[in-house]
Amino acid sequence: MAVMEPDTKPNWDSLDARPLPSWYDESKIGIFLHWGVFSVPSFGDEWFWYYWRTGAKQYVNYMAENYKPDFTYQDFAADFTTDLFNPNEWAEIFKASGAKYLVLTSKHHEGFTNWPSKYSFSWNSMDVGPKRDLVGELAAAIRNRTDIHFGVYHSLFEWFNPLFLQDQANNFATRDFALRKAMPELYELVERYQPEVIWSDGAAAIDTYWNSTGFLAWLYNDSPVKDVVVTNDRWGTNTDCKHGGFFSCTDRYNPGTLQKHKWENAMTIDKYSWGFRREARLADMLSMEELLSEVVSTVSCGGNILINVGPTKDGRIVPIFEERLRSLGQWLNVNGAAIYGTSPWVYQNDTVTKDVWYTSKKNSQGSLDVFAILLQWPDPGNFFLGSPTPTQNTEVTLLGYDTPIKWTASAAHAQGITVLIPAIPFNKMPCNYAWVLKLENLASLPRHYALDEY
Amino acid sequence: MAVMEPDTKPNWDSLDARPLPSWYDESKIGIFLHWGVFSVPSFGDEWFWYYWRTGAKQYVNYMAENYKPDFTYQDFAADFTTDLFNPNEWAEIFKASGAKYLVLTSKHHEGFTNWPSKYSFSWNSMDVGPKRDLVGELAAAIRNRTDIHFGVYHSLFEWFNPLFLQDQANNFATRDFALRKAMPELYELVERYQPEVIWSDGAAAIDTYWNSTGFLAWLYNDSPVKDVVVTNDRWGTNTDCKHGGFFSCTDRYNPGTLQKHKWENAMTIDKYSWGFRREARLADMLSMEELLSEVVSTVSCGGNILINVGPTKDGRIVPIFEERLRSLGQWLNVNGAAIYGTSPWVYQNDTVTKDVWYTSKKNSQGSLDVFAILLQWPDPGNFFLGSPTPTQNTEVTLLGYDTPIKWTASAAHAQGITVLIPAIPFNKMPCNYAWVLKLENLASLPRHYALDEY
Amino acid sequence: MAVMEPDTKPNWDSLDARPLPSWYDESKIGIFLHWGVFSVPSFGDEWFWYYWRTGAKQYVNYMAENYKPDFTYQDFAADFTTDLFNPNEWAEIFKASGAKYLVLTSKHHEGFTNWPSKYSFSWNSMDVGPKRDLVGELAAAIRNRTDIHFGVYHSLFEWFNPLFLQDQANNFATRDFALRKAMPELYELVERYQPEVIWSDGAAAIDTYWNSTGFLAWLYNDSPVKDVVVTNDRWGTNTDCKHGGFFSCTDRYNPGTLQKHKWENAMTIDKYSWGFRREARLADMLSMEELLSEVVSTVSCGGNILINVGPTKDGRIVPIFEERLRSLGQWLNVNGAAIYGTSPWVYQNDTVTKDVWYTSKKNSQGSLDVFAILLQWPDPGNFFLGSPTPTQNTEVTLLGYDTPIKWTASAAHAQGITVLIPAIPFNKMPCNYAWVLKLENLASLPRHYALDEY
Amino acid sequence: MAVMEPDTKPNWDSLDARPLPSWYDESKIGIFLHWGVFSVPSFGDEWFWYYWRTGAKQYVNYMAENYKPDFTYQDFAADFTTDLFNPNEWAEIFKASGAKYLVLTSKHHEGFTNWPSKYSFSWNSMDVGPKRDLVGELAAAIRNRTDIHFGVYHSLFEWFNPLFLQDQANNFATRDFALRKAMPELYELVERYQPEVIWSDGAAAIDTYWNSTGFLAWLYNDSPVKDVVVTNDRWGTNTDCKHGGFFSCTDRYNPGTLQKHKWENAMTIDKYSWGFRREARLADMLSMEELLSEVVSTVSCGGNILINVGPTKDGRIVPIFEERLRSLGQWLNVNGAAIYGTSPWVYQNDTVTKDVWYTSKKNSQGSLDVFAILLQWPDPGNFFLGSPTPTQNTEVTLLGYDTPIKWTASAAHAQGITVLIPAIPFNKMPCNYAWVLKLENLASLPRHYALDEY
Repeated sequence: MAVMEPDTKPNWDSLDARPLPSWYDESKIGIFLHWGVFSVPSFGDEWFWYYWRTGAKQYVNYMAENYKPDFTYQDFAADFTTDLFNPNEWAEIFKASGAKYLVLTSKHHEGFTNWPSKYSFSWNSMDVGPKRDLVGELAAAIRNRTDIHFGVYHSLFEWFNPLFLQDQANNFATRDFALRKAMPELYELVERYQPEVIWSDGAAAIDTYWNSTGFLAWLYNDSPVKDVVVTNDRWGTNTDCKHGGFFSCTDRYNPGTLQKHKWENAMTIDKYSWGFRREARLADMLSMEELLSEVVSTVSCGGNILINVGPTKDGRIVPIFEERLRSLGQWLNVNGAAIYGTSPWVYQNDTVTKDVWYTSKKNSQGSLDVFAILLQWPDPGNFFLGSPTPTQNTEVTLLGYDTPIKWTASAAHAQGITVLIPAIPFNKMPCNYAWVLKLENLASLPRHYALDEY
Repeated sequence: MAVMEPDTKPNWDSLDARPLPSWYDESKIGIFLHWGVFSVPSFGDEWFWYYWRTGAKQYVNYMAENYKPDFTYQDFAADFTTDLFNPNEWAEIFKASGAKYLVLTSKHHEGFTNWPSKYSFSWNSMDVGPKRDLVGELAAAIRNRTDIHFGVYHSLFEWFNPLFLQDQANNFATRDFALRKAMPELYELVERYQPEVIWSDGAAAIDTYWNSTGFLAWLYNDSPVKDVVVTNDRWGTNTDCKHGGFFSCTDRYNPGTLQKHKWENAMTIDKYSWGFRREARLADMLSMEELLSEVVSTVSCGGNILINVGPTKDGRIVPIFEERLRSLGQWLNVNGAAIYGTSPWVYQNDTVTKDVWYTSKKNSQGSLDVFAILLQWPDPGNFFLGSPTPTQNTEVTLLGYDTPIKWTASAAHAQGITVLIPAIPFNKMPCNYAWVLKLENLASLPRHYALDEY
Repeated sequence: MAVMEPDTKPNWDSLDARPLPSWYDESKIGIFLHWGVFSVPSFGDEWFWYYWRTGAKQYVNYMAENYKPDFTYQDFAADFTTDLFNPNEWAEIFKASGAKYLVLTSKHHEGFTNWPSKYSFSWNSMDVGPKRDLVGELAAAIRNRTDIHFGVYHSLFEWFNPLFLQDQANNFATRDFALRKAMPELYELVERYQPEVIWSDGAAAIDTYWNSTGFLAWLYNDSPVKDVVVTNDRWGTNTDCKHGGFFSCTDRYNPGTLQKHKWENAMTIDKYSWGFRREARLADMLSMEELLSEVVSTVSCGGNILINVGPTKDGRIVPIFEERLRSLGQWLNVNGAAIYGTSPWVYQNDTVTKDVWYTSKKNSQGSLDVFAILLQWPDPGNFFLGSPTPTQNTEVTLLGYDTPIKWTASAAHAQGITVLIPAIPFNKMPCNYAWVLKLENLASLPRHYALDEY
Repeated sequence: MAVMEPDTKPNWDSLDARPLPSWYDESKIGIFLHWGVFSVPSFGDEWFWYYWRTGAKQYVNYMAENYKPDFTYQDFAADFTTDLFNPNEWAEIFKASGAKYLVLTSKHHEGFTNWPSKYSFSWNSMDVGPKRDLVGELAAAIRNRTDIHFGVYHSLFEWFNPLFLQDQANNFATRDFALRKAMPELYELVERYQPEVIWSDGAAAIDTYWNSTGFLAWLYNDSPVKDVVVTNDRWGTNTDCKHGGFFSCTDRYNPGTLQKHKWENAMTIDKYSWGFRREARLADMLSMEELLSEVVSTVSCGGNILINVGPTKDGRIVPIFEERLRSLGQWLNVNGAAIYGTSPWVYQNDTVTKDVWYTSKKNSQGSLDVFAILLQWPDPGNFFLGSPTPTQNTEVTLLGYDTPIKWTASAAHAQGITVLIPAIPFNKMPCNYAWVLKLENLASLPRHYALDEY
């Protein structure tokens, strides 16, 4: 675990120089939860309020057809019952998914805090709706029952908070909202729940408006999570993909190539929404094949993946999400060695054969194991991988399958290896959706980047 | 109208030295309106939330029997519909009552603002419930349709605002609530609605916590209502009956004797509540006799009276209140000369005969008219008043009755006058409930206090 | 108490021949209560549903502005909470009003039964809304605490019951609704609550459709209330003012002249609605003068008066209604002798002087006392009544006033009497609103009708 | 299509003699939908009301914790919004599932009718909740967009209908409920929606109470669906598995052996409920392997399978159900030949090898194809089936796989065939979950029953 130097300064040079605590890169896979008052209409997406109020037809019509004229967004909160919310059940599902960290929306752009914040009187989960401390209850369950790292998402701005709108109208020459609302509640959140991830969002103004560097210096030097916390990069309109901890850049960020800086692909199983949508169809959900393609391509290129599901207003992870998460966990039970604690290899995807992604990890003998992850199961027979260079000692195995896999070299010392895919009967296959060839004792290659950067 | 010197200082000596704008003393009679989320349960009284949450059985049982376990006070707000609120109708009723000013709860101790305050996001009348600016709508109607002065009640503290509770727990060594919530919204209120009365309440901490003197100095020197505004004395736990504008001292303050400082009797027609109570019975309402007794004794002793009615959650002044207010207006139509613009006389109530109160006013000839207000209609025949000293020119009339009233002196220059009450038939009586004998050209008497103090 | 002959037949000749149980005529004054799901919107009047559904703008707009598009009338029922309904309090108020019988809507045209009828599954006060047996609870309180006779209103038809609409569409050739719904529930009501008044309404089809004569024959011969029950005349579109018990003819029926058949003036204190209306203003309420004018003119002409008030959805008799009822009771405490148990006199109103109505009653000496009820208090002095013919023994008193009243005859044996109204001081008047001169030992006059008809 | 003789009599002998319209047996697979007010709490199961009211702790506690004390079951109806119900989407999903008929709960034991029944005023889907004709809308969509036969479930009794309870208390000596409610609405349902399946349930009294034979005689002789309709056997407490159309016997009836009479296995994907349950977990859902095991074993033994899913209160088929239904459809796209239009074979499951079930169908050449359905994919190599007897002309194929499958006989004319399972690579497998070997030209065997019975 990284030990923080006590002298991080409130400027980006100093803050950016802080190494990420190592648990984060090793974890690879996190769960993202979007839960809030938007989970009540659970229609369209979690930007429901914004779209409705700014006149998007789908939302305006929905409200006109189903609610009384004076119904306000805040009125939805009473129906955020969470009556069936069992955080222990959630913990069990997330554990089974193989995820190693969790990020819960503590407050989305609507401004409703999922904990009883002192700074959000009458617009928080204890005063209206759940009458529960959602952040606190989930943190406790996760910590009591799993080794998952507990983190929080926090939106700096709030769409319709009049203090923010006033600061914005003043071109942020005033900072009432930042000083009275956003930052106090962020400090409160850290001190109360000690999250290991602060997933900032909704900067909507430059970093100096928020005094993000001041907060981060406190977070890294003096907060109760100073040694373990990781943050992302959304700390100002000028910081995305530039400053902070890992880079989340844009939603569903998946560049497909190796990045210099640790990054994260925050994506959703429901292709069209982060919050739960009642109208979602099966076709709107990522299939397991699609999900694993995201996981594998992300990890190969040095990213973590933060997989989002939207809980319901009554506190359920619906079965289709549970199915995806458990299937992912089953796949990782077989293939986790190719994911957790790995580093990108010299090549990210195969130079010749499509749908093959690589990861690597030093084994206990100190040499590098390379994992070729196949998104399609090949026909039995010769299967050529263009990137690896085998040696005499090279061994090829299929994760989850006992018998070693035969291979042949193209030529001595030449790049490329031909693996002989066996005709494994259906009922002997180790897993579904994607398969991992573990390549040991390959010839070592010049690296394109410093592995220890991560 | 008083012209303010521009140099009031933020200390009580200076603030207290400011003369009250004269309209206030001349008005005598105001209407008080308690309206807020407490108007939804409209059960018990407007302290519903406080009593419920602190375990008062009546309230706890009511909630247990009628609401789901997780129902919160904030959930009531959705039902604060004001669907039948017509501010023009209200203005018409208040005008008919004879009241000259009006004080509306802009925010009670619950913290819900009846206007869309920037400092009360999601807990105000635009974001939940009415979806209307109640303060603004009523101010406009009152100003468009009447000569009534529009004022606002404002509670400094909020029972359950966590910022306040935190400051309180810190023995007010911190001032987060005062600085971030109470005072900003008070400035906002003044600038936006320009109220002519600021009826402060709920100080709950000493004046320095709130910086009340700073606010009042601004109010008197720089605010848009600096020349016309009046305030009361509830600006700190140390100011009641001591500092500020008129003294409201305690609820239902009616000392029964002449006071040195201008004061106000804030009282309610429903004896048991300021907010509307659905369970109120006829016997809980002040009768007209009781109400006029309050009015007359208050005005005789130099006070104003602020008569409270509680509107309903749907925005109605219920008929029983309308009946009292209109009856008061009818009485004032006959007897207003004995109330409006009067000053206390040398004597407040008669030295000999019970239930007779005095007021006085300089007439156009510059001599003093004295009004003896009788709360009981006497038997026909001799009726002795012990306080006045008649002269040869003394004339006695009954307000609203044409024929002059005969009288006899006790002895030349002696104090005391015997009025000959005529046997006026039922259908010729000028009014009900109380009757005014106007006494002109009495002998002048040494005064016990300086009239111009008011 | 009338003893029923056991042989009333199911035809109008036989049914109409049954004498009314005497308690009814002696009672004179009843309370009418309109209470139902319409008490929830409490807007417009109790025909809310009908007007809304048939497109009346006021109602359509109200719903469009305040409810979601798919809100149905039935949805109102959930808010018919009756949470503050205390039948003992009601009983106390009704007792204080001086009324001698009570008629509660057991079911109005909406079809919602205020008791748990077997024939109205899921549309009754136990299944939705109150979760109470409103008819039963009120009956018990009335019987335990007062001598008031308990009765029920019952609407035969239901505006939107599809069975009724089908029968109607078939020109009542089918009788599904009558046989399966209306009549079974009426029998159930009688057997379960033993009401002493059946106040039928909403016939909407001829008597044979309902088999009203069959029901009444059972009611008079075999029901548990056969000896005491009275009914009205709304048993078919062909029966109003023709058949049944007393005649209610039309709403607010008050012919102003003596009727051959016992009749009832069913009227309301709120001039515009029988059900509670939240938007009612003071001006919409009958004043005490107007109410007593109705009472007196009705009783003088041989009618009973059924005075309606609308309880609220939460179960309250609001103070303005309580005030009218208690004021009526106070008036009757003084003047009841001129009302209860009286018969119409030869003259109903005075032949010469306006606003004077007569009643009469045999006194214990067997001679007839005549009551002249004055709706205006006259000027002191001579007051002429054109109808009575005094004798030497004639005595005139003012009810509630000790001193006998002087009078003079016009001429010996001549019709007309001049009463000398004394100048009673305001505080000695026996009552307000109306006053009764009791005239004893007048000359007897030829009668225009048989008194014992009643 | 079966042509009905016009002379079916209202007795079981005659009714039972009516042949089932052939479409039913050919269809094999139907969809069952449980939808009603129970879909609002969607907690426990569709018997929510009954369990709650009879004191089951789980339900009593749930209500106590989440609802106000006087909340009634009927109050749930307002939240039966169906706001996202799109019958065309449903039709598309059901079509994709491969089901050939559909049965919707028109009314469950709660008594709420999903159509605007004349006999259920204020307790139907037009008067409260959806404000839509759910039966009618779904029927139209199914008929417009698919070839699926539309049917309705109908509960004869209602748990808490007081008319039923009264008849029951009278030991069914009275028949008010049957005559006034259950039967009229059943006729109405048939005439209005012309369902091709009447799936009767909740008999709770013997057939004569309902006059079921009278209804069925009308249904078969005179109704608009007389030629096409099928019914089940729940027409009286004395008819299950004895009289009527197909036998549904008990819920989840799956005897595992060939039956003499056409039967149906009505079962649910959610193992614990027919109605939607918000708290359902993934583990509560039948896996595709479990579902296909039910389908295959049912069809092999001569049954139809009616697969239930519970739509939500807002009108959605949730993705986990959609996933199961579409996966079933994909499986049937490959293997439908072994299901639709088949008959039981001589053997139902293999005499030697576990998890192999047989069906059969005459092919266009008039000989019998036998389908061996394997619930486990065997290891490559020899796979023995003990029941078939091959001939020289026997051909074996795997449905969905091009290459014929080799086989060997045990001995000439001996029963038993050894199929040589090829090592089909994962990516060449025709389907998942279950696989069908089609066996052509087997030796014919003596039959144990008459095929044309179906």
